[in-house]
Amino acid sequence: MASTQEPQDKRRRVDADAVVASDPDSLITSADPEHPANLIPSLCAKFWTLGWVTGTGGGCSIRDDDLVYIAPSGVQKELMKNTDIYVLSLSAQQDPTFRQRTYLRSPPCYKPSQCTPLFLAAFTRRGAGCCIHTHSQWAVLVTLLLEQQQQQGSGSGSGRNVFEINNIEQIKGFGKGPSKQGNLGYHDTLRIPVIENTPHEEDLTEYLEAAMEEFPDTYAVLVRRHGVYVWGDNVHKAKTQCESLDYLFQLAVEMRKLGIPWVSDIPRIAPDRS
Amino acid sequence: MASTQEPQDKRRRVDADAVVASDPDSLITSADPEHPANLIPSLCAKFWTLGWVTGTGGGCSIRDDDLVYIAPSGVQKELMKNTDIYVLSLSAQQDPTFRQRTYLRSPPCYKPSQCTPLFLAAFTRRGAGCCIHTHSQWAVLVTLLLEQQQQQGSGSGSGRNVFEINNIEQIKGFGKGPSKQGNLGYHDTLRIPVIENTPHEEDLTEYLEAAMEEFPDTYAVLVRRHGVYVWGDNVHKAKTQCESLDYLFQLAVEMRKLGIPWVSDIPRIAPDRS
Amino acid sequence: MASTQEPQDKRRRVDADAVVASDPDSLITSADPEHPANLIPSLCAKFWTLGWVTGTGGGCSIRDDDLVYIAPSGVQKELMKNTDIYVLSLSAQQDPTFRQRTYLRSPPCYKPSQCTPLFLAAFTRRGAGCCIHTHSQWAVLVTLLLEQQQQQGSGSGSGRNVFEINNIEQIKGFGKGPSKQGNLGYHDTLRIPVIENTPHEEDLTEYLEAAMEEFPDTYAVLVRRHGVYVWGDNVHKAKTQCESLDYLFQLAVEMRKLGIPWVSDIPRIAPDRS
Amino acid sequence: MASTQEPQDKRRRVDADAVVASDPDSLITSADPEHPANLIPSLCAKFWTLGWVTGTGGGCSIRDDDLVYIAPSGVQKELMKNTDIYVLSLSAQQDPTFRQRTYLRSPPCYKPSQCTPLFLAAFTRRGAGCCIHTHSQWAVLVTLLLEQQQQQGSGSGSGRNVFEINNIEQIKGFGKGPSKQGNLGYHDTLRIPVIENTPHEEDLTEYLEAAMEEFPDTYAVLVRRHGVYVWGDNVHKAKTQCESLDYLFQLAVEMRKLGIPWVSDIPRIAPDRS
Repeated sequence: MASTQEPQDKRRRVDADAVVASDPDSLITSADPEHPANLIPSLCAKFWTLGWVTGTGGGCSIRDDDLVYIAPSGVQKELMKNTDIYVLSLSAQQDPTFRQRTYLRSPPCYKPSQCTPLFLAAFTRRGAGCCIHTHSQWAVLVTLLLEQQQQQGSGSGSGRNVFEINNIEQIKGFGKGPSKQGNLGYHDTLRIPVIENTPHEEDLTEYLEAAMEEFPDTYAVLVRRHGVYVWGDNVHKAKTQCESLDYLFQLAVEMRKLGIPWVSDIPRIAPDRS
Repeated sequence: MASTQEPQDKRRRVDADAVVASDPDSLITSADPEHPANLIPSLCAKFWTLGWVTGTGGGCSIRDDDLVYIAPSGVQKELMKNTDIYVLSLSAQQDPTFRQRTYLRSPPCYKPSQCTPLFLAAFTRRGAGCCIHTHSQWAVLVTLLLEQQQQQGSGSGSGRNVFEINNIEQIKGFGKGPSKQGNLGYHDTLRIPVIENTPHEEDLTEYLEAAMEEFPDTYAVLVRRHGVYVWGDNVHKAKTQCESLDYLFQLAVEMRKLGIPWVSDIPRIAPDRS
Repeated sequence: MASTQEPQDKRRRVDADAVVASDPDSLITSADPEHPANLIPSLCAKFWTLGWVTGTGGGCSIRDDDLVYIAPSGVQKELMKNTDIYVLSLSAQQDPTFRQRTYLRSPPCYKPSQCTPLFLAAFTRRGAGCCIHTHSQWAVLVTLLLEQQQQQGSGSGSGRNVFEINNIEQIKGFGKGPSKQGNLGYHDTLRIPVIENTPHEEDLTEYLEAAMEEFPDTYAVLVRRHGVYVWGDNVHKAKTQCESLDYLFQLAVEMRKLGIPWVSDIPRIAPDRS
Repeated sequence: MASTQEPQDKRRRVDADAVVASDPDSLITSADPEHPANLIPSLCAKFWTLGWVTGTGGGCSIRDDDLVYIAPSGVQKELMKNTDIYVLSLSAQQDPTFRQRTYLRSPPCYKPSQCTPLFLAAFTRRGAGCCIHTHSQWAVLVTLLLEQQQQQGSGSGSGRNVFEINNIEQIKGFGKGPSKQGNLGYHDTLRIPVIENTPHEEDLTEYLEAAMEEFPDTYAVLVRRHGVYVWGDNVHKAKTQCESLDYLFQLAVEMRKLGIPWVSDIPRIAPDRS
């Protein structure tokens, strides 16, 4: 789950090539619970209890140097096993001669996830080590409230395509951005772009990538009436950022029910020394 | 959990007859966690944590070729054991000379579930492999909101007897229909018929069957002020469709609280190639 | 957990007397998970996850013939052990010469629960086999809504001192009454009396007993701004009635938020043959 | 977890000094599940399921005589292990020559929690044995509602800086105050001060201490738009007071949604003999 490319990287790719020719299942076989092929199932089981991956929706992908591990399509997330995991080479996907996606290792049943190109976007464009996609109802409701706000002409801030919240402690759970040190401060405004949903999940890729470009510091993109993609430099950061964001989405929905605005201008009682 | 009838079917029935004469408990005894008599208890325990089968309400039935496994009436669903399961022969139930329901295997205590004829309707009329009945509060609230909407004369769409929602990603968790390929699309409108409740659950059967006829593509029927019946070709599909539907019911209730309509006409930004 | 007094009863009392003189801990020591001293901790742990016994609130008592098992005061309900349980003789409590409550077995630390006389009321006046007391927020909110309704002069039905709901399937989870056969029907109105809270829980006893007299068929009494007492002939019935009631309380709060009345007059589409 | 200082105390400090020189990990190594280094992880895992410590937010500290055990910063609370725990000497922190905080034992990775000085305030100023900090959404919403109330000029009671609630049974889950016997009564008004949030958590210390002085009986301080600090004489009391308070915060939010006031003047039907 390194976020930088080390020389060891090259050796791994060579190993991977050899593995494909001989025993692809060795890519997903390990006694280490922190191995991506073990970690994805245990994370997804946890996400299921949180209501993030209901009815086979949502998913999770981990990158370990050049190797990308992805949950398959249509699996019950709380029942997933390491043997259900797809593995592919990130560098191979970026090869200009690349035509069709090939997997170093595929599960015997199941189909590849339509989320794959969106996960890859987080890995290639942001150097992320993990990307989580949830169908959390709080995420969906936030996008609906932004849409409603615009229709009613009562929106403040950046309109229907950005979720904004500030002056909530949990905002400090997010990094300032890939090229910046440290996390957001309490008084900072967290901004999460919203893209419109498309009939086919893979068609979201260009919009997700455009949002990444427009919001170079974001670690997440909301998809209207669908859910959210959240990533991080490693599994720890992706997972805790995803939790913090879901907390904020739920809080925002409750705030709306109670008539409390998401963005406020409150006085500072102590200096922000960060 | 096969959805088609294979030659093997006939052999099973013969086996079943022999079994009844000798050791009916062999029908519910297996070390395989995927055996229906083991799967129903583990599914029901999960459903209990979701609030679907509170206070012995709701239930679950699995069909394995000609054999139908059913949870009994009045059992605490999170405590159920394989020895609590009823087993009957589906073909015997359809026999024109059939008068009274007989069970190949019955638990020592408990009574047969009043849901039995409703589960059988899903098996005989739709070839389902599994049928789930929940008392989910979200399902009940949706039927109450449809009723309220009609009383207030503010209903849109097909009125009090159909729940309709569209433009939500989770809709893609449903098949288009038993005779069709693939799943609903994001822009499609999911339609779930609602039937009125009756004092005796088994009296719902004729209304459930009528709803199945009127809505040949549906995999679920809501029962007003009661809950929902959801089925699928196999356990996986019944369970994930039930989860997706419950997600949509909960979302719909929250949408109503926030003044967001269930059905909308939003612009398409990408072609639906399905 | 028998609901009738058998000859065996007398023998038990004698046993109990002998036990007190020798080894009181034998009363709470058993390898059987269904033994009351094991069952109360496992039930309370489950109730904790349901939010019924938060912060040491609430409790549970089981009667096995003449022996009454009670959770102590001030214990973290999800951590309770069989050694925390009090045991007393029901008949001794009813003895006219009885002055001060004595326990056949007491835990080394902890104090007796203030709920004790309320549990005993369910056992002596209704012959209950189990009584559950929850601080469920849904129960509290229902009593607050009844109070609010009266203050606003908008109440329908029997006013602030009775919770009434009908035409909801889950109502069938309740017995018609101790002297009646079978359960309530779908169209029946469930009525749960509400008593006012007192500073000391044991002072509730006379009001609880008065409510039992006024509502001879009820299996539960709500306590305003406090919670609910629910009982049943045995553990199974007390627990499933408590679950069903909590379901109805939660549903009622959601119905109120959505402007749906608790009591309605809906047409019957099928005969009630019960 | 003793709340009084015993002679044994001095011996422990000597032990601790010796330990630092030789094997600091012995401070966090024990087979006893009640040892603070084992208890903090198990409590935090439980708090995670309650939504109190989402996304590495919140925390927990236990004092055992002079030794203070603290969860580190930035750890996933449901995955914490005893080896993640910091240990420091409380008396050393109060030493007037003390300049920089030193730890008797530090985990190999992680940084000290910014909550440390706030936990220490509960230990030194209140003699607490345990302090819990949650980011519970109910706590945050209560502080937002108090702020809203003041802005709308509709506040009753002590305004935006005190949460007040009375006539709810769960209030009895709180002690009257460090120098008083027994717990609050049903009719008593629970008052929890609210302090404003600061960009850096440690800057909250002076405001927390000021609130402790102004409210000498409180066992908790709310932090606006952030969460709550709750303490108690020992782990049991801190944890059950925190649960009871969170219950009241959630209830208060639901009451507000339903238009029910937090403070009421209801008639007493029985004497308060406490």
